[in-house]
Amino acid sequence: MKQAIVARTDIGMGQGKLAAQVAHASLSAYEDTDPGARTDWKGGGQKKVVLKASGESEIFELADRAEREGVPHAVIRDAGHTQLESGTVTALAVGPAADDRVDRVTGHLSLF
Amino acid sequence: MKQAIVARTDIGMGQGKLAAQVAHASLSAYEDTDPGARTDWKGGGQKKVVLKASGESEIFELADRAEREGVPHAVIRDAGHTQLESGTVTALAVGPAADDRVDRVTGHLSLF
Repeated sequence: MKQAIVARTDIGMGQGKLAAQVAHASLSAYEDTDPGARTDWKGGGQKKVVLKASGESEIFELADRAEREGVPHAVIRDAGHTQLESGTVTALAVGPAADDRVDRVTGHLSLF
Repeated sequence: MKQAIVARTDIGMGQGKLAAQVAHASLSAYEDTDPGARTDWKGGGQKKVVLKASGESEIFELADRAEREGVPHAVIRDAGHTQLESGTVTALAVGPAADDRVDRVTGHLSLF
Protein backbone atom coordinates (compact mmCIF):
# COMPACT_ATOMS: atom_id res chain seq x y z
CA MET A 1 0.00 0.00 0.00
CA LYS A 2 1.19 3.48 -0.75
CA GLN A 3 0.09 6.97 -1.57
CA ALA A 4 1.65 9.11 -4.29
CA ILE A 5 1.39 12.88 -4.08
CA VAL A 6 2.19 14.74 -7.28
CA ALA A 7 3.02 18.44 -7.11
CA ARG A 8 3.64 21.05 -9.78
CA THR A 9 7.18 22.22 -10.41
CA ASP A 10 6.20 25.17 -12.62
CA ILE A 11 4.60 27.57 -10.13
CA GLY A 12 7.54 28.33 -7.86
CA MET A 13 6.15 27.07 -4.58
CA GLY A 14 8.50 27.55 -1.64
CA GLN A 15 9.38 24.53 0.49
CA GLY A 16 6.80 25.27 3.18
CA LYS A 17 4.07 25.99 0.65
CA LEU A 18 4.86 22.76 -1.19
CA ALA A 19 4.71 20.78 2.04
CA ALA A 20 1.36 22.29 3.03
CA GLN A 21 -0.18 21.54 -0.38
CA VAL A 22 1.14 17.97 -0.31
CA ALA A 23 -0.33 17.49 3.18
CA HIS A 24 -3.65 18.89 2.04
CA ALA A 25 -3.75 16.50 -0.93
CA SER A 26 -2.69 13.54 1.21
CA LEU A 27 -5.47 14.04 3.73
CA SER A 28 -8.13 14.73 1.10
CA ALA A 29 -7.46 11.52 -0.84
CA TYR A 30 -7.17 9.57 2.42
CA GLU A 31 -10.64 10.68 3.38
CA ASP A 32 -12.01 9.32 0.09
CA THR A 33 -10.42 5.92 0.74
CA ASP A 34 -12.40 3.04 2.20
CA PRO A 35 -11.74 2.13 5.86
CA GLY A 36 -10.05 -1.21 5.12
CA ALA A 37 -7.50 0.34 2.77
CA ARG A 38 -6.87 3.17 5.26
CA THR A 39 -6.10 0.68 8.00
CA ASP A 40 -3.81 -1.40 5.78
CA TRP A 41 -1.88 1.68 4.71
CA LYS A 42 -1.45 2.97 8.25
CA GLY A 43 -0.39 -0.46 9.45
CA GLY A 44 2.38 -0.41 6.85
CA GLY A 45 3.67 2.96 8.07
CA GLN A 46 1.73 5.35 5.80
CA LYS A 47 4.16 4.95 2.90
CA LYS A 48 4.20 8.09 0.76
CA VAL A 49 6.14 9.31 -2.25
CA VAL A 50 6.19 12.89 -3.49
CA LEU A 51 6.51 13.20 -7.27
CA LYS A 52 6.89 15.95 -9.87
CA ALA A 53 4.36 17.16 -12.43
CA SER A 54 5.26 19.70 -15.08
CA GLY A 55 2.02 21.66 -14.96
CA GLU A 56 -1.74 21.80 -14.56
CA SER A 57 -2.52 19.72 -17.64
CA GLU A 58 -0.39 16.85 -16.36
CA ILE A 59 -2.20 16.95 -13.00
CA PHE A 60 -5.55 16.71 -14.77
CA GLU A 61 -4.38 13.85 -17.01
CA LEU A 62 -3.16 11.91 -13.96
CA ALA A 63 -6.42 12.58 -12.10
CA ASP A 64 -8.34 11.24 -15.08
CA ARG A 65 -6.17 8.14 -15.16
CA ALA A 66 -6.75 7.58 -11.40
CA GLU A 67 -10.49 7.97 -11.97
CA ARG A 68 -10.46 5.36 -14.73
CA GLU A 69 -8.38 2.98 -12.56
CA GLY A 70 -10.80 3.47 -9.67
CA VAL A 71 -8.06 4.70 -7.32
CA PRO A 72 -9.05 7.33 -4.72
CA HIS A 73 -7.54 10.70 -5.54
CA ALA A 74 -7.86 14.42 -4.82
CA VAL A 75 -6.87 17.51 -6.80
CA ILE A 76 -5.93 20.48 -4.62
CA ARG A 77 -6.42 24.14 -5.45
CA ASP A 78 -4.75 26.81 -3.40
CA ALA A 79 -6.94 29.16 -1.39
CA GLY A 80 -4.69 31.99 -2.57
CA HIS A 81 -3.91 33.70 0.72
CA THR A 82 -0.18 33.70 -0.07
CA GLN A 83 2.15 33.23 -3.03
CA LEU A 84 -0.36 31.88 -5.58
CA GLU A 85 -3.47 33.17 -7.30
CA SER A 86 -6.65 31.79 -5.70
CA GLY A 87 -7.78 28.56 -7.35
CA THR A 88 -4.37 27.58 -8.71
CA VAL A 89 -4.09 23.79 -8.99
CA THR A 90 -1.08 22.75 -6.92
CA ALA A 91 -1.12 19.01 -6.23
CA LEU A 92 -2.82 15.65 -6.69
CA ALA A 93 -2.81 12.72 -4.28
CA VAL A 94 -3.38 9.17 -5.57
CA GLY A 95 -4.20 6.47 -3.04
CA PRO A 96 -3.59 4.99 -0.56
CA ALA A 97 -4.00 1.85 -2.66
CA ALA A 98 -1.99 -1.23 -3.60
CA ASP A 99 1.44 -0.27 -4.97
CA ASP A 100 0.73 -1.63 -8.47
CA ARG A 101 -2.53 0.31 -8.75
CA VAL A 102 -0.83 3.56 -7.75
CA ASP A 103 2.06 2.81 -10.11
CA ARG A 104 -0.33 2.44 -13.04
CA VAL A 105 -1.17 6.11 -12.51
CA THR A 106 2.11 7.69 -11.33
CA GLY A 107 4.84 5.07 -11.87
CA HIS A 108 6.51 7.06 -14.67
CA LEU A 109 7.06 10.25 -12.65
CA SER A 110 10.27 11.47 -10.96
CA LEU A 111 10.72 11.92 -7.24
CA PHE A 112 10.41 15.49 -6.00
CA MET B 1 -9.13 26.60 13.33
CA LYS B 2 -5.71 25.71 12.06
CA GLN B 3 -2.98 23.14 12.18
CA ALA B 4 0.71 23.98 12.57
CA ILE B 5 3.31 21.52 11.34
CA VAL B 6 6.82 22.09 12.63
CA ALA B 7 9.75 20.50 10.80
CA ARG B 8 13.46 20.34 11.58
CA THR B 9 15.84 22.50 9.59
CA ASP B 10 19.01 20.78 10.85
CA ILE B 11 18.82 17.38 9.14
CA GLY B 12 19.03 18.40 5.49
CA MET B 13 15.73 17.00 4.27
CA GLY B 14 15.13 17.51 0.56
CA GLN B 15 11.91 19.21 -0.55
CA GLY B 16 10.07 15.98 -1.29
CA LYS B 17 11.18 14.36 1.95
CA LEU B 18 10.11 17.41 3.92
CA ALA B 19 6.70 17.40 2.25
CA ALA B 20 6.17 13.69 2.97
CA GLN B 21 7.09 14.10 6.65
CA VAL B 22 4.82 17.13 7.00
CA ALA B 23 1.96 15.17 5.42
CA HIS B 24 2.59 12.26 7.76
CA ALA B 25 2.52 14.56 10.80
CA SER B 26 -0.59 16.36 9.57
CA LEU B 27 -2.59 13.16 9.14
CA SER B 28 -1.41 11.65 12.43
CA ALA B 29 -2.46 14.65 14.54
CA TYR B 30 -5.71 14.92 12.60
CA GLU B 31 -6.55 11.36 13.54
CA ASP B 32 -6.10 12.22 17.23
CA THR B 33 -8.50 15.16 16.92
CA ASP B 34 -12.13 14.88 17.96
CA PRO B 35 -14.71 14.69 15.14
CA GLY B 36 -16.24 18.11 15.83
CA ALA B 37 -12.90 19.89 15.55
CA ARG B 38 -12.04 17.91 12.41
CA THR B 39 -15.24 19.03 10.73
CA ASP B 40 -14.76 22.67 11.75
CA TRP B 41 -11.23 22.67 10.39
CA LYS B 42 -12.17 21.08 7.08
CA GLY B 43 -15.11 23.47 6.72
CA GLY B 44 -12.66 26.35 7.01
CA GLY B 45 -10.43 24.96 4.24
CA GLN B 46 -7.95 22.88 6.29
CA LYS B 47 -5.78 25.90 7.15
CA LYS B 48 -2.17 24.80 7.68
CA VAL B 49 1.11 26.54 8.38
CA VAL B 50 4.52 24.90 8.10
CA LEU B 51 7.06 26.20 10.61
CA LYS B 52 10.75 25.74 11.42
CA ALA B 53 12.32 24.00 14.40
CA SER B 54 16.07 24.07 15.00
CA GLY B 55 16.40 20.46 16.15
CA GLU B 56 15.06 17.46 18.01
CA SER B 57 15.06 19.08 21.44
CA GLU B 58 12.86 21.92 20.19
CA ILE B 59 10.39 19.40 18.70
CA PHE B 60 10.14 17.63 22.06
CA GLU B 61 9.70 20.90 23.98
CA LEU B 62 6.88 21.93 21.64
CA ALA B 63 5.24 18.50 21.94
CA ASP B 64 5.36 18.81 25.71
CA ARG B 65 3.80 22.26 25.53
CA ALA B 66 1.01 20.92 23.26
CA GLU B 67 0.42 18.09 25.74
CA ARG B 68 0.09 20.53 28.64
CA GLU B 69 -2.27 22.74 26.59
CA GLY B 70 -4.38 19.70 25.69
CA VAL B 71 -3.96 20.28 21.95
CA PRO B 72 -3.82 17.16 19.70
CA HIS B 73 -0.35 16.60 18.33
CA ALA B 74 1.90 13.98 16.77
CA VAL B 75 5.69 13.57 16.66
CA ILE B 76 6.93 11.83 13.51
CA ARG B 77 9.98 9.60 13.22
CA ASP B 78 11.32 8.65 9.83
CA ALA B 79 11.18 4.99 8.84
CA GLY B 80 14.71 5.42 7.48
CA HIS B 81 14.31 3.93 4.02
CA THR B 82 15.98 6.96 2.44
CA GLN B 83 18.11 9.95 3.43
CA LEU B 84 17.78 9.68 7.24
CA GLU B 85 18.75 7.18 9.90
CA SER B 86 15.77 5.10 11.02
CA GLY B 87 13.95 6.67 13.97
CA THR B 88 15.10 10.22 13.30
CA VAL B 89 12.53 12.71 14.60
CA THR B 90 11.52 14.89 11.63
CA ALA B 91 8.32 16.80 12.38
CA LEU B 92 5.54 17.63 14.81
CA ALA B 93 1.94 18.54 13.98
CA VAL B 94 -0.13 20.60 16.43
CA GLY B 95 -3.88 20.72 15.93
CA PRO B 96 -6.25 21.21 14.22
CA ALA B 97 -7.49 23.41 17.04
CA ALA B 98 -8.59 27.01 17.57
CA ASP B 99 -5.97 29.47 16.30
CA ASP B 100 -5.16 30.86 19.74
CA ARG B 101 -4.61 27.40 21.22
CA VAL B 102 -2.22 26.47 18.41
CA ASP B 103 -0.47 29.84 18.73
CA ARG B 104 0.18 29.22 22.43
CA VAL B 105 2.35 26.30 21.31
CA THR B 106 3.89 27.44 18.01
CA GLY B 107 3.14 31.17 17.69
CA HIS B 108 6.79 32.18 18.14
CA LEU B 109 8.19 30.08 15.28
CA SER B 110 9.15 31.22 11.75
CA LEU B 111 7.45 30.07 8.56
CA PHE B 112 9.30 27.37 6.65
